[in-house]
Amino acid sequence: MAEYAKTFGRLVNEFSKMPNIGLKTAEKMAYYVLDLPQDRCDELVALINGVRNEMHFCSVCGSMTDEDPCRICTSPIRRRDVLCVVKDARDVTALERIKCHDGLYHVLGGLISPIDGIRPSDIRIKELVDRVSKGEFKEVILALSPNAEGETTTLYIAKLLKPYGVRLSRIAHGIPAGGELEYADDVTLSGALANRREL
Amino acid sequence: MAEYAKTFGRLVNEFSKMPNIGLKTAEKMAYYVLDLPQDRCDELVALINGVRNEMHFCSVCGSMTDEDPCRICTSPIRRRDVLCVVKDARDVTALERIKCHDGLYHVLGGLISPIDGIRPSDIRIKELVDRVSKGEFKEVILALSPNAEGETTTLYIAKLLKPYGVRLSRIAHGIPAGGELEYADDVTLSGALANRREL
Repeated sequence: MAEYAKTFGRLVNEFSKMPNIGLKTAEKMAYYVLDLPQDRCDELVALINGVRNEMHFCSVCGSMTDEDPCRICTSPIRRRDVLCVVKDARDVTALERIKCHDGLYHVLGGLISPIDGIRPSDIRIKELVDRVSKGEFKEVILALSPNAEGETTTLYIAKLLKPYGVRLSRIAHGIPAGGELEYADDVTLSGALANRREL
Repeated sequence: MAEYAKTFGRLVNEFSKMPNIGLKTAEKMAYYVLDLPQDRCDELVALINGVRNEMHFCSVCGSMTDEDPCRICTSPIRRRDVLCVVKDARDVTALERIKCHDGLYHVLGGLISPIDGIRPSDIRIKELVDRVSKGEFKEVILALSPNAEGETTTLYIAKLLKPYGVRLSRIAHGIPAGGELEYADDVTLSGALANRREL
């Protein structure tokens, strides 16, 4: 990228490391930043810093939030007897977008993966069992990606929660095998949620 | 976007205003920012601020630069007898990427557009005539987009530079490489036919 001025080239390079961003888009983004009015640019910088300073994990569900407990956990209009178990905060966002689940969430923060050395104790499974053991939930929906780690985690959790007598279900395999939940399109995702199977 | 925490949602919204960035990509970018190590995030913010503070117009060619005159204007290995006239700094970047022009540039900073109220005196045409009048250039290549504004500006500049006896040329307009003849618009197609080259 010798054709760029130094700082500009470094910004393009930094943008191009972001997900879905190629060199051409990164270049357009850098020119966009250059053309921004000063107050809009200051706001962008403030938001980048703000997101990192203000966001933390919800002490109840483990999702990303700027309040504690998060807005979903404290919402008065959501069902408190259905719990949806997901891998991370991205999945909560994806499910909230389709507006098909009006219950609560439990974010595991990862999936069991012997290959990557992630054991059940490394993710928020204990917290999940604690929540379920209080007897408030009638149904627990396991909404994990249908890959090896997701399957392992689903079966592991199902086995642990069986004694508590809650209805256990999982999202349907409408999502292509090997795919990631957060990349699924809205129709596939809502179909998968509607066709959840009892375990 | 009620499903997002407030600051996070605003950052997603801010990213989604960037060129080529849809809502899903903006969301991935915001999560990427959230996951960045602190030093990398600080660097990103510093680059955004830096680009705006350090970048300015080259006093010779009018391109964006962090030095003055810019690297291209002061380069010892570039031909100093060929001048390429473009609309803005983005075009310099595009032409530098293909490495087919090793001469100098002149950035107009816009195109003549009576509809938008942009007159010849609003763009850097006077500076172009000044540079050409010194007699250093053998050829001036007009590399402006083939739309109404580009055509007007090309013809206007050609008329002004004629007396100086430089060779004037313009980039070819026609069907893009890999493009299908049947999908080309009428103006492009008739232009491509009119400007056919002898084989």
